[in-house]
Amino acid sequence: MPGSTFGRILTVTTFGESHGPGIGVVMDGAPPGIALAVEDIQKELDRRRPGQSAITTPRNEKDRVEILSGVFDGLSTGTPIALLIRNEDKRSSDYDNLKSLFRPGHADWTYGAKYGVRDWRGSGRASGRETAARVAAGAVARKFLAARGVSILGYTREIGGVRAVRVDPAEIEKNPARCPDPEAAPLMIAQIERARADGDSVGGIVEVVAQGCPPGLGDPVFDKLEALLGHAILSVGAVRGVEIGTGFESARMKGSSYNDEPFMDHGRMRTRTNNAGGIAGGISNGMDIIIRAAMRPPASISRPQKTVDAAGAEVTVEIAGRHDPCIVPRAVPVLEAMTALVLADCLLVQDVYRSR
Amino acid sequence: MPGSTFGRILTVTTFGESHGPGIGVVMDGAPPGIALAVEDIQKELDRRRPGQSAITTPRNEKDRVEILSGVFDGLSTGTPIALLIRNEDKRSSDYDNLKSLFRPGHADWTYGAKYGVRDWRGSGRASGRETAARVAAGAVARKFLAARGVSILGYTREIGGVRAVRVDPAEIEKNPARCPDPEAAPLMIAQIERARADGDSVGGIVEVVAQGCPPGLGDPVFDKLEALLGHAILSVGAVRGVEIGTGFESARMKGSSYNDEPFMDHGRMRTRTNNAGGIAGGISNGMDIIIRAAMRPPASISRPQKTVDAAGAEVTVEIAGRHDPCIVPRAVPVLEAMTALVLADCLLVQDVYRSR
Amino acid sequence: MPGSTFGRILTVTTFGESHGPGIGVVMDGAPPGIALAVEDIQKELDRRRPGQSAITTPRNEKDRVEILSGVFDGLSTGTPIALLIRNEDKRSSDYDNLKSLFRPGHADWTYGAKYGVRDWRGSGRASGRETAARVAAGAVARKFLAARGVSILGYTREIGGVRAVRVDPAEIEKNPARCPDPEAAPLMIAQIERARADGDSVGGIVEVVAQGCPPGLGDPVFDKLEALLGHAILSVGAVRGVEIGTGFESARMKGSSYNDEPFMDHGRMRTRTNNAGGIAGGISNGMDIIIRAAMRPPASISRPQKTVDAAGAEVTVEIAGRHDPCIVPRAVPVLEAMTALVLADCLLVQDVYRSR
Amino acid sequence: MPGSTFGRILTVTTFGESHGPGIGVVMDGAPPGIALAVEDIQKELDRRRPGQSAITTPRNEKDRVEILSGVFDGLSTGTPIALLIRNEDKRSSDYDNLKSLFRPGHADWTYGAKYGVRDWRGSGRASGRETAARVAAGAVARKFLAARGVSILGYTREIGGVRAVRVDPAEIEKNPARCPDPEAAPLMIAQIERARADGDSVGGIVEVVAQGCPPGLGDPVFDKLEALLGHAILSVGAVRGVEIGTGFESARMKGSSYNDEPFMDHGRMRTRTNNAGGIAGGISNGMDIIIRAAMRPPASISRPQKTVDAAGAEVTVEIAGRHDPCIVPRAVPVLEAMTALVLADCLLVQDVYRSR
Repeated sequence: MPGSTFGRILTVTTFGESHGPGIGVVMDGAPPGIALAVEDIQKELDRRRPGQSAITTPRNEKDRVEILSGVFDGLSTGTPIALLIRNEDKRSSDYDNLKSLFRPGHADWTYGAKYGVRDWRGSGRASGRETAARVAAGAVARKFLAARGVSILGYTREIGGVRAVRVDPAEIEKNPARCPDPEAAPLMIAQIERARADGDSVGGIVEVVAQGCPPGLGDPVFDKLEALLGHAILSVGAVRGVEIGTGFESARMKGSSYNDEPFMDHGRMRTRTNNAGGIAGGISNGMDIIIRAAMRPPASISRPQKTVDAAGAEVTVEIAGRHDPCIVPRAVPVLEAMTALVLADCLLVQDVYRSR
Repeated sequence: MPGSTFGRILTVTTFGESHGPGIGVVMDGAPPGIALAVEDIQKELDRRRPGQSAITTPRNEKDRVEILSGVFDGLSTGTPIALLIRNEDKRSSDYDNLKSLFRPGHADWTYGAKYGVRDWRGSGRASGRETAARVAAGAVARKFLAARGVSILGYTREIGGVRAVRVDPAEIEKNPARCPDPEAAPLMIAQIERARADGDSVGGIVEVVAQGCPPGLGDPVFDKLEALLGHAILSVGAVRGVEIGTGFESARMKGSSYNDEPFMDHGRMRTRTNNAGGIAGGISNGMDIIIRAAMRPPASISRPQKTVDAAGAEVTVEIAGRHDPCIVPRAVPVLEAMTALVLADCLLVQDVYRSR
Repeated sequence: MPGSTFGRILTVTTFGESHGPGIGVVMDGAPPGIALAVEDIQKELDRRRPGQSAITTPRNEKDRVEILSGVFDGLSTGTPIALLIRNEDKRSSDYDNLKSLFRPGHADWTYGAKYGVRDWRGSGRASGRETAARVAAGAVARKFLAARGVSILGYTREIGGVRAVRVDPAEIEKNPARCPDPEAAPLMIAQIERARADGDSVGGIVEVVAQGCPPGLGDPVFDKLEALLGHAILSVGAVRGVEIGTGFESARMKGSSYNDEPFMDHGRMRTRTNNAGGIAGGISNGMDIIIRAAMRPPASISRPQKTVDAAGAEVTVEIAGRHDPCIVPRAVPVLEAMTALVLADCLLVQDVYRSR
Repeated sequence: MPGSTFGRILTVTTFGESHGPGIGVVMDGAPPGIALAVEDIQKELDRRRPGQSAITTPRNEKDRVEILSGVFDGLSTGTPIALLIRNEDKRSSDYDNLKSLFRPGHADWTYGAKYGVRDWRGSGRASGRETAARVAAGAVARKFLAARGVSILGYTREIGGVRAVRVDPAEIEKNPARCPDPEAAPLMIAQIERARADGDSVGGIVEVVAQGCPPGLGDPVFDKLEALLGHAILSVGAVRGVEIGTGFESARMKGSSYNDEPFMDHGRMRTRTNNAGGIAGGISNGMDIIIRAAMRPPASISRPQKTVDAAGAEVTVEIAGRHDPCIVPRAVPVLEAMTALVLADCLLVQDVYRSR
C-alpha cells in the first residue's frame, strides 16, 4: 500500500533504485491472450532511455527488458507479467559528495525525514529512472488498448515558453523535442541548449490525447476518470499541474460557451466542441480525451546552489553527474504510459458492466 | 471499488442521490479518542449548504446531520463513523421534462451509457449534493488534524476573470464569494450576478493552503502527496485542473529560480521560497502545502441550449430548477474537506513509520 | 481499510454498534438493473433477527430495513446501495455493571487494549448485531446470484455433538434449529434447551452449499476461492474453523482416493466425487461449492465466572442480558450471506475475463 | 487485484511460473531500518526447497535468491524489496504429454476454463513452486517480527493419520518430517515412504504457533485476525481447512468450558487456558496464537488415473515428473511465512493506533 502499486483491476507494482541491481514492474490483472513480445516493450523503453539524443543526458543505458513471467507462447496468460531492467551505466561515485547534504529541489531531505535511512546514490527510489518500469508496463497496456481500438498520442506542447501552435502527429518523433509543430521544434531545442550552456534547466508542458475510448470509462464520485488520470500524471516526478480539456482556461469561461453541444453523428452521440476533454460527470463520453501536464525544470543544475547538510550547516553544492537540462521530451512516453495504464484499467472495470 | 470509496487507512465511502431519501458517508479508520460533536460537523455543512447567500441557489436545505455510529461519550471509538443527511427540499417534478433528454455539460448521457439505467432526478448520484457527505467527513478529519497542529484554509482566488490579489484570512467568510481580498470581492459578486441575470454561469479558481503539516506525508512513486491531492481535488464535480505550488507557471521557469533554497531556521529545515508548494519528491517538507483548482462554470444554465434526446432527436432544452450561477464559493469547503481527508490519511500512514 | 470493508469489485462497508442509533451497510459495485424491493432484504433479516423462536434470545427487534440509496424505480442503478436498520430494543442498563470489567470470552479487553476507548454497551461494534448488516447486503447479492443461476443453501450440520446425517432441504426452515435432518432436529433443540437451563451455551457446525456456480470463480495465488470464502466465514464472530469439501478429513486420505475423477457429462466436464468441494487450484470447477464452519458456544452465559476488572482486580461476573444459548441457527443466514457476497464478487471479477 | 497481491500496509506481490525464467516477489511497506542480508532469506528458502531430504521430490533446485531493490548498506530503506529466484532444474519435457489433458486434482482444467490459455508446463502459475516467493517474503517479515519480540514456530502435527502427541521444539528440524515428537516422527516417515512405494500420496496437518504478539492485532468485523490468517493459510495450494485454538473441537464444547478465564499475571492480563488461540473478538489478546491447517494428499501420483482430455475424450494418465508423496514437511516454512506476513502487517496497522 505505501505507494508502489497503482490500479484497481490492472495493477502495476514497480520496484528498484537508480543505482541498485535493477528496476522492474509486476503487472497483475492483464487480460489473457494479449500478443506480447519483448520488442513491443523495448520499443517504448527506447523512446524514454537516456542518451537517445543530443539534448538529453549523456548517460548511456541500454535499458534492456526481460520478461520474467506471465507470457507463454507469445501470449499473456492472465497471470502476473514481471519485467526486469538491469541497471548498467551507474557511477555511484558521482554521488559520494552528496551523501550527507540535501540537494535543492530534490527529495533527499524529505526521504531522510520520512524513513530515517535513504539510498543517496542518484536519488535512489526517487530517481526518474523508476519511470522506465512504468513505460514498460504502459507498453503492455497499449497492446491491450490497441486491440480495443484505443490509441494514445503524446507530444511536447511547450518548452521554455515556446509553444507548439500546430499539432502534426507525423512531426513528433522527427525532432528530439517531440514537438508536433515543425516551426516551434528548433526554438524549443534552442531553449534547451541555452539552459545547458548556462548550467541551468527549463520546464514545459506535455499534452496527451487518447482516441477511440468507448463511453463509460471512469466511475462516479472518487474514481472519476479525470481523478484517476490526475493521480497517475501527478505521480510522475516533475509534474506540478494537470488539466483536462480546456482546463484552467475553463475558470474564465461562461457556461454558455463551455458546455459542449451534443448532436447525433451517424447514429452516435458526439459533441460539436470538446471543452470537456472527453469526460462528462467523470465518465468518458466517446470524444477524444485530452490531458496536459505542467513540468517544472529539472532540479539538478550544475550552477552552485546554497543548501544545508545533514549536520545543519549551510553549504554550497555543485551537482556533477550527467543530467537532463529539460525532461519534457523524455517524459512524453512516461505520460503516455500512465494514461494507457489508467485507460486499460478503466476498460477492464467497465467490462464488468458490459457483461450484464 | 467502483468509485465511492477514497483513502487508504482513513477511508470514506459516500452514498446517496440528490432526490432519494438522503446522502451520507461511512468513515473507517478514524483514530479513537477524537472529541466529536454534531456541531463540529454541522458547522462545515452550513458553509456548503444551498441557500446560504444571495449568490447561491435559492434551494433551501437545512442539511442536518445525524451521527449513526462510531462516537460514544463524545469521543470517536476507532470504529466506523456513519453520518446521514436526509434530503428535504427536493422537487423532482422540476426534472420531469429531463427524463428522456441529455442536458449539455451534464452526466446524463454518460451515466446512461455506463449503466443502462439512471436516476434522472436532479443528476442523481452525479449531483453536487453528494459533496455534502464529503464535507461532513472532512469535518471529522479536520478535528483530527487540528489535534495534530494542522490547519486548512480555503478561499476563492478567482471568479469570472476577477482575481484576488491580497490574501487576508480574516476577510474570507465576510463576503459570500469567500474572497480573501476585500477589493476583489464586490467585483467577483458582480460577475456572478451578471451571469445569473444573463441566464448564464461563471467559473473560477479555489486555493487551499494547509499549514502545520509535518515532513514525511505522502509516499514514493504512485502515492506522492500531490498525486493523492490531485486525485481528491479532481474528483470534485466541476474541477478541470489542479496545480501545486507554482503549478503551470513552473513550466516557464528555470531550474535556478524554481529550486527552493534550504536553510536552517531555529534548528528546523525550511526553504526561503516555496515554489514546490510544500512537497519535494512527493513527500511533504514541512512548508505550507498550496493547491489550486480550476472550476468550470456550472452546466445548468437557463438559456435555451441545443441537445439530443434518448431517441436521438435534436431538441432544445431550457433548464428550470434552481441552480448556482457560480459554484466556486460553495466549493471552498468541499475542497478544504478533500484536502483534509488526504492529509489525515497521510498522517495515519506516516504514523506507521513514526513508531519505528 | 481498518476492517469494516470487504470485497474487491462488489464492496460492502458495514457500520454501527449494538446500542447506538442503528446499524447499516453501504454496497458499492452492485451491478445496475437488479430488481430490488425492501421485502427481498427484509425476508432474510427476519431469518436472522432475535426473538424468532423459543430457542433464541427473547430480545425482540423488528430489524426493519430502509433503502437509503442506489435503487430507483425498483432497480439497482449501479451506484452505492445504502441500507439502514435502526436499533430498537436496546436496554443499555443491562450492561451498566459491565462497564469496568472484562467478560470472559468477549472482546471487551481486546477492544480496550486496541483503542483505549470502547463502547461497552452490549459489546458495541463487536456485537453479533453487526451481522444484520451483512445479511441485508447478502440479500442483495443473492438477487444478483439468482439471476445468474447461482443458489445458496445453508443449514445446521451439528449442535452440541448431535449431527444431522440426512440433508433434506425441505426440512431446514421447518424447525428452529435449521436442521435438515428431521430426526436430529429435536435432539439438537434439546441440547440447546438443556444448555439454557444450565445457564450454559453450546456450539455447532454450519454447512453452506452453493449450486450453479460457473467454472472460473476465484483468482490464482492469494485470492483463491477458498481463501476468500475462508476470510469471509472466519470474519463472523464465533467461527473458530472453516473447511472446504472433505476439509480436515482430507489430511487422512490418500491421493488415489482424494483426487476427484473427471468425466464428460452431456458435454460438460464434471467429477464423479466432489472431495474438492467445487474448487481446484483455487478456482471453481462447476461442481457444488461446499463449506463448513465450526462455531464455538456463545461467550455470554449466566453462570458466575471469574474474571478481572479494569483496575486489575479479580472479580466474579454473572451476565444478565438476554442471550442466545446457541448461535448456530441464527448464524445460518449470516454464513449464507457471506458466501453470497464472495461469490457475487467473484462473478463480477470473472466478468472481466468473460468479456475478452 | 486479481490475486497476486496480499496485505494491507505490508503488501507482497508474487510473480512467476514453475517453468518460466524465475519466480519472485515485491514487498512494499516493509519498515525502514530492518537489518537484512541474503542469508536471512536463503536460510528459509533452504527449508522449503525440493531435494532437501529423502522423503521429498528428488528435483534439485538451489533456489538462490537475489535482492533486487529496497536494501542499502544492509538495511531496508522503506522502499519496495524485490526478490528474484531463477528457475533451474526444469524439465518441461516431462509435461509434454500433459499439454492437452487435465490431471485429476490439479488446476489444469480450471485455469483453462478461466483464462482460455494456460502455461501447461508443471502447473505454471498454480505450481507449489510459487510458494518459494512467499517464503522469501516471509523471511523479511520474520526479521521485522523478531525485532518486535514475535517468534513463529511451525511443525507437523499429523501425517497419514499419525499424530504428534508431544511438542518438543528442539526435535522439529532434527527429522525430515518436521515432527516435534521424536516417537511419532519415524512413523510419519514410514507413512510417506509407503505412499511413495505405492505410487500414492498422503496428507496431514501443520500447526503454527506465534509467541510474543502484543494485544491489539487484527481489526473489527471483516479483518479479524483469524479471518486474515484464514485467508493467508487457505491461499496455500493444498490446504483444505484451517482452525484457530480449539477450532472444530469448539463446536462440541460448552460455553462454561470454552471461555478462557482471565487473570492478572505480574500486572499483565492473561488467561488460564487458551481455547481461543490468542484471539478474542478478532483481536489478539497477548496469548500464543495457534493455527492448524489441514493439507490434502498431493494431486500428482504415479498410479494410472482416469480423466478427460481437451477434446472431451476419456483417457488414462500416468504422471511421470518428480513429485512429493507428502507436502506437509515442506509446507511448514510456507505456513510459517504466511503467518509472519499477516502478523507483520497487523503490527504495522496497529502502529497507527499505538502512536495516538
